[in-house]
Amino acid sequence: MGLITPRTLKGFRDYLPEVMIPRERLMETARKVYRSYGFSPIDTPALEYLEILQGKGSDETDKQLYKFEDHGGRSVGMRFDLTVPLARFTAQHVAELPLPFKRYHIATVWRGENTQRGRYREFMQCDFDTIGTLAVGADIETGLVIHDLMRAIGFMKFHMHINNRMVLNGFLDKWGIRDRSVPVLRALDKLAKIGPEKVIVEMVEAAQITPEQAEAVLDFAAVSGPADQVLAKLPAKVAGSEQGEAGVQRLAELVAGMRAAGVAEEVLELDVSIARGLDYYTGVIFETTLDELPGLGSVCSGGRYDNLAGLFTTQQLPGIGASLGLDRLLAGMEELGLTEKTATTAPVFIPFFEKDRQADYLRLAAALRLMGIGCELYPEPKKLSVQLKYADRRGFRAAIIAGGNEFDGKFVQLKNLTSGEKSEVPIDEGLTSLMAVLRTILVP
Amino acid sequence: MGLITPRTLKGFRDYLPEVMIPRERLMETARKVYRSYGFSPIDTPALEYLEILQGKGSDETDKQLYKFEDHGGRSVGMRFDLTVPLARFTAQHVAELPLPFKRYHIATVWRGENTQRGRYREFMQCDFDTIGTLAVGADIETGLVIHDLMRAIGFMKFHMHINNRMVLNGFLDKWGIRDRSVPVLRALDKLAKIGPEKVIVEMVEAAQITPEQAEAVLDFAAVSGPADQVLAKLPAKVAGSEQGEAGVQRLAELVAGMRAAGVAEEVLELDVSIARGLDYYTGVIFETTLDELPGLGSVCSGGRYDNLAGLFTTQQLPGIGASLGLDRLLAGMEELGLTEKTATTAPVFIPFFEKDRQADYLRLAAALRLMGIGCELYPEPKKLSVQLKYADRRGFRAAIIAGGNEFDGKFVQLKNLTSGEKSEVPIDEGLTSLMAVLRTILVP
Repeated sequence: MGLITPRTLKGFRDYLPEVMIPRERLMETARKVYRSYGFSPIDTPALEYLEILQGKGSDETDKQLYKFEDHGGRSVGMRFDLTVPLARFTAQHVAELPLPFKRYHIATVWRGENTQRGRYREFMQCDFDTIGTLAVGADIETGLVIHDLMRAIGFMKFHMHINNRMVLNGFLDKWGIRDRSVPVLRALDKLAKIGPEKVIVEMVEAAQITPEQAEAVLDFAAVSGPADQVLAKLPAKVAGSEQGEAGVQRLAELVAGMRAAGVAEEVLELDVSIARGLDYYTGVIFETTLDELPGLGSVCSGGRYDNLAGLFTTQQLPGIGASLGLDRLLAGMEELGLTEKTATTAPVFIPFFEKDRQADYLRLAAALRLMGIGCELYPEPKKLSVQLKYADRRGFRAAIIAGGNEFDGKFVQLKNLTSGEKSEVPIDEGLTSLMAVLRTILVP
Repeated sequence: MGLITPRTLKGFRDYLPEVMIPRERLMETARKVYRSYGFSPIDTPALEYLEILQGKGSDETDKQLYKFEDHGGRSVGMRFDLTVPLARFTAQHVAELPLPFKRYHIATVWRGENTQRGRYREFMQCDFDTIGTLAVGADIETGLVIHDLMRAIGFMKFHMHINNRMVLNGFLDKWGIRDRSVPVLRALDKLAKIGPEKVIVEMVEAAQITPEQAEAVLDFAAVSGPADQVLAKLPAKVAGSEQGEAGVQRLAELVAGMRAAGVAEEVLELDVSIARGLDYYTGVIFETTLDELPGLGSVCSGGRYDNLAGLFTTQQLPGIGASLGLDRLLAGMEELGLTEKTATTAPVFIPFFEKDRQADYLRLAAALRLMGIGCELYPEPKKLSVQLKYADRRGFRAAIIAGGNEFDGKFVQLKNLTSGEKSEVPIDEGLTSLMAVLRTILVP
């Protein structure tokens, strides 16, 4: 029988250790932050009844859906996001779930995307949502989670761009163009891309509003910037609209709450032009950009919605949530030098140097692990140069080199694999000296 | 439009927080142990070309394969285990991988199983393997990882059952029945289930060996027990067979190595009758049972194989690995009371008690999180009784209750939600008193 060519499907990829290690660490950081606010993990099946998934996203997600008939003749599909499964899950289990229900879900989704755009057909989503409350407290908390995520990942310079659809709606009411909000906002969403003049043309043509109204929309959209400034100008822009005034009030409370919890003033920017998903979000909207990488786009986005699961239950379930863009974040971290280049998860390497001393090596490695230091012992006695070459490819930070002389004399050679520095360290009871020197290498 | 019934496919399930929390913690423990030995994570696509998956397991896995045509007309399948993807991955990337290549892979697999047997069609596998070395050092390390996993999970009373196929082969050589090893071992594998007499009948019938030979096989299989005893008896059983003697030697080195690294004598049992997967394993074999739950079966199994990726490459890649049975382990942990019953990931609850004090609540929660204490602040002011009922359903361990009086007087009411005990604690600069009392509740 001939060999089968080992290959992955178009649009799919393997994650090798040096890519998977920072990926896993990022997911861990996200879990840690979510948990610190009491969000709980859930998981749902990769496969759902087709009727659960179809027609729930856009025409595009329908077209991209991986679907087939299973062994029992059921029409099934692979989930294309984590929001539709959350809606189905919440509707199905609402009786067992204490409300507000705060969940995070980190899982793979699949879309048969056009790979020419550099998109993958399999990717990981990392969502958190709070279901069952309209409270501004949940808006504040969502903002705080995003803030803490950025800090925990290591991004110190970032901006959160915040808006509230109620403010936008209030303004549109005031100008009598609320009924044309969809084409107006669709045109406004292109502001950064196509510029103000083309936006006005599109508004007049597609939304059939007057050039004066279109100018007013752009003028309104320009009221963006540091939170305090914007909050001072907004009331006049929505005066007389109950929804608009309520929206401004919620934005003010959100900003005050986030500041009370320690968020620095300069992080918060109110940007009244962001709309994100015209029909979905109904309240606050969040986007997050990295100051040093403005071209990357938003790395964490989300907002408030009125009704999560209307297709599955008559129970009205308002909610709010956001999604961390793992792949974008990893690209950003790499560009900013926040990821360590390593293919190992254990920092210390122990070459297996002297054949008869396997028990000594094993004892040393076991002692280090008990003290919380991960270490890899080479599995067999080979030339030291071969083993150190292996260590170099893997990216260990320190090597503990010992043979018969060392073990008998109760010392080891400790090599800092970053600096190349070498030193002799005694191995006393409890390895206290070795641990002290190791710590200076491993905790810089 | 009518509502769509929210439901999961037959054989699939949702994981609610109280099930997902211990599941996630178990995976974290596994990752931590794998990493402490320098195993690195990888991931591979859920979908593979059908030719990669088909015919690689058994007839049964072929029948159970989820397969379909993708948008590009390719025949694809969903992975049914993590071993076939590892073989494909290793063959594809071997030039980039330093050998020995030590990886772990925790991921979902799918099999269209008969659900009447209580099996699920989607489950998580949790594998680790060392590829590219024949060294007994890798056998020792595999045993140590299994040992450390059990301890880290919290199982203190367990047995590792170890065998080596070379010993078995050596014995079969000695009796001239090596060419019938498959039917002989298949019958021997049923020893625990059907008893010695039926095994002899099956051996004589299916393997066409003499009753005397069958008796010898059973007699050999009975040489099982504490490692030292078995190692004393085995040489005689395989004397004259080079492979058998080498196998006994490897077992002896494995036992010595594991002991050197601190494994207690009573944990190791040599069981010459276990064979696990007749055609696959070629060297050491591991099974792991919990003393208190003998009926659960092996919770972590694996072994050494000669050639991982022979279908994909001419390069011979020997390896060794094992797989942690997540679902069995969770069942065992629950039965032994090792899982905490909780639907929250944050231990502390802060009721939102007094409307005007949202900023104070937010500051308190932020301070606790900065000190590493996860806490959930209720999103809106509701009756305290409603909030405490919610806290009760979620399973928090402590509640910090404060209103205007408390905040103004710089103290809080701290309630231990397990014991019901309440105390007043000052909230000074740095929250030192509060942290001290909280720690007595949270770290029992």
